[in-house]
Amino acid sequence: MPHPFDPGYVTEPFLTLCADYPEANVYPPEQFRLEWGPIFHCGRLDGSARVLVIGQDPAQHETVVRRILVGEAGRRVQGLLAKLGITRSYVFINTYLYSVYGSVRAKTRKAPALIDYRNRWLHALLVGRQVEAVLSLGKAADEAWQRWKATPAAQSVNVAYAAMTHPTQPESSSKGDKTKLVAATKKLLQNWNVALQALSPSLHHVDVSTPLVLYGENWGDGDRVAIPESDFPAGLPAWMHEQDGWAKRVGANDLAKRRTITITVPKGIVP
Amino acid sequence: MPHPFDPGYVTEPFLTLCADYPEANVYPPEQFRLEWGPIFHCGRLDGSARVLVIGQDPAQHETVVRRILVGEAGRRVQGLLAKLGITRSYVFINTYLYSVYGSVRAKTRKAPALIDYRNRWLHALLVGRQVEAVLSLGKAADEAWQRWKATPAAQSVNVAYAAMTHPTQPESSSKGDKTKLVAATKKLLQNWNVALQALSPSLHHVDVSTPLVLYGENWGDGDRVAIPESDFPAGLPAWMHEQDGWAKRVGANDLAKRRTITITVPKGIVP
Repeated sequence: MPHPFDPGYVTEPFLTLCADYPEANVYPPEQFRLEWGPIFHCGRLDGSARVLVIGQDPAQHETVVRRILVGEAGRRVQGLLAKLGITRSYVFINTYLYSVYGSVRAKTRKAPALIDYRNRWLHALLVGRQVEAVLSLGKAADEAWQRWKATPAAQSVNVAYAAMTHPTQPESSSKGDKTKLVAATKKLLQNWNVALQALSPSLHHVDVSTPLVLYGENWGDGDRVAIPESDFPAGLPAWMHEQDGWAKRVGANDLAKRRTITITVPKGIVP
Repeated sequence: MPHPFDPGYVTEPFLTLCADYPEANVYPPEQFRLEWGPIFHCGRLDGSARVLVIGQDPAQHETVVRRILVGEAGRRVQGLLAKLGITRSYVFINTYLYSVYGSVRAKTRKAPALIDYRNRWLHALLVGRQVEAVLSLGKAADEAWQRWKATPAAQSVNVAYAAMTHPTQPESSSKGDKTKLVAATKKLLQNWNVALQALSPSLHHVDVSTPLVLYGENWGDGDRVAIPESDFPAGLPAWMHEQDGWAKRVGANDLAKRRTITITVPKGIVP
C-alpha cells in the first residue's frame, strides 16, 4: 500500500527560510528549547493551500516528526478543518520556531528579527497565493497575524480571518481540575463555532463539500481527526500519525526533562 | 549562519520508492524492527554522487534522523571517504530498509521482493549516473551488490568495487573483550587499506584532491569525521550530527527495549 508523504522544503523561498533561520540571538535559550532545533511548518507549500493556520509553538511530538501540529492540538485542528471541508488544502506555521520553555517575555515576542522572519513565511504563503481563510490559535498567534497585517505587502491580501482559542487551552488552563476542564472546553467550542460560522462563507474552494455541523458542548465523535499520512516526512511509521502520547519529556529534574524525549511505540504494534 | 540541509525525496524514481516500499510481507517483524518504519538513504540523490556505499541496516540514531549511516559507523565511513577526497559526492543505501532484530534468515535475505526493491534503488543510482566506485560494508551488503551485478541492467555499469568489513564489526565481534577489539580493529583497518588502494585509482572526480594516507593499526586522529550538516533533514540541531550516543534503546526487558528510543541532548548544550 503506498504511503504518501510530505516532500518538505524543495523550492524557494522555503529552501532559504529553512537553511537560514533565527537562533539564540533572537530566541533566548532561557525562553525556548533551542536545543531541539527549529520546526517550520505542516501542510502544503506548493500554493494549493486554501486555509492558513497560525499555531503557537511545537511540542515533543512535533520535535520528533519535524512538522508542527501533529499531536493532540493538531488532531483538534484537523477536526475543525474537516468541518469546513478542508482535508488537504491547508498549511500551518507557528508563532514561534522553537518550543516555548516557561514563558515568553514581551521584549522577545516583539523582537523585530523574530517578527520579520515569521512575516517572510506569511508573505510566501499569502501574497499571490490562493488562501481564502486564516485562523490563529491563541493570543500570541493572533498578535503574529496582526503584525503581519500591518505590513505593506499584506494590504494586497484579502482573506477571512478568525482569532480562535488555542486547541489545548482547556487542558492548560484547568490544570487537572475536571470541572474547570468541562467549562473551558465548552467555552472553546463556542469560540470555535463562531469562527466556523465566520469563515465558512468565505471558503469558495474546499476539498470535500460538506454541510457545516457545529460543535456541541464537549468534543464529539469525529471532532478529533488523525493527521494525514501525507503531512509526514517519508517513512515514518503509521502509529506516529494515528496515535498520540508516544513522545514524552521524562527525567528526574527540570534539566533532565529538558534534555530528554522518550519515544515509545504504542502497545499492540510490536509483535 | 546558514544551515544547509538534505531536501530528501523530491524527484522520481525516489518519490515512488519512498511512498511504496516493502513491509511486513517482505520484512518479517520477527527479524526486523518494522515498527520504526523504513529508512531509505543518506547523501546525494541528484546524480552528483561519485561513490556509492551499501551499508547493512539502520540503528537508533538513524531512526531519529531518518537518514542512514549517521551514527558511529557513519562517522567511520565519512573518514574513509575523506581519505579518498570525497566529502560530499556520495550516496548511501542499506541492504535492509529496516533495523535488523536478532538475525536475518536466509529465506528472508533471498526473497525476490526484497532484492527487487533494493535493485530499483541501485538501478536509479547507477545506471546512466556518474558513480565511479562502490563500497559494501559487511557480508550482507556484498551479497546485495553481487545480486544487483547479476541483473541485465548492471552489465552496462562499469565501476570499481570493494567489499569491506563493516565499520563496527570490531565492536560487535569482540563483545566487550578489549584484546579482541584491538585485534579486530587492526584487521578491519588492514581490510580498509586494501579497499582504499583498490578504489583510489578509479576515482577520477573527487571533491578535494588529497594524497592517499592509509590507516594505522588503530583509529587515528581524524579517522572519524562528523556527518555533514547538509546530509540531515532541515532544522535538526547541531549535536545530532556532531555527536554520538544521544539515542538509546532503553527498557526493563526485551519488549520494552524494542518499543523505546530515548533521545538525550548531550551535556553542555542546554543552558
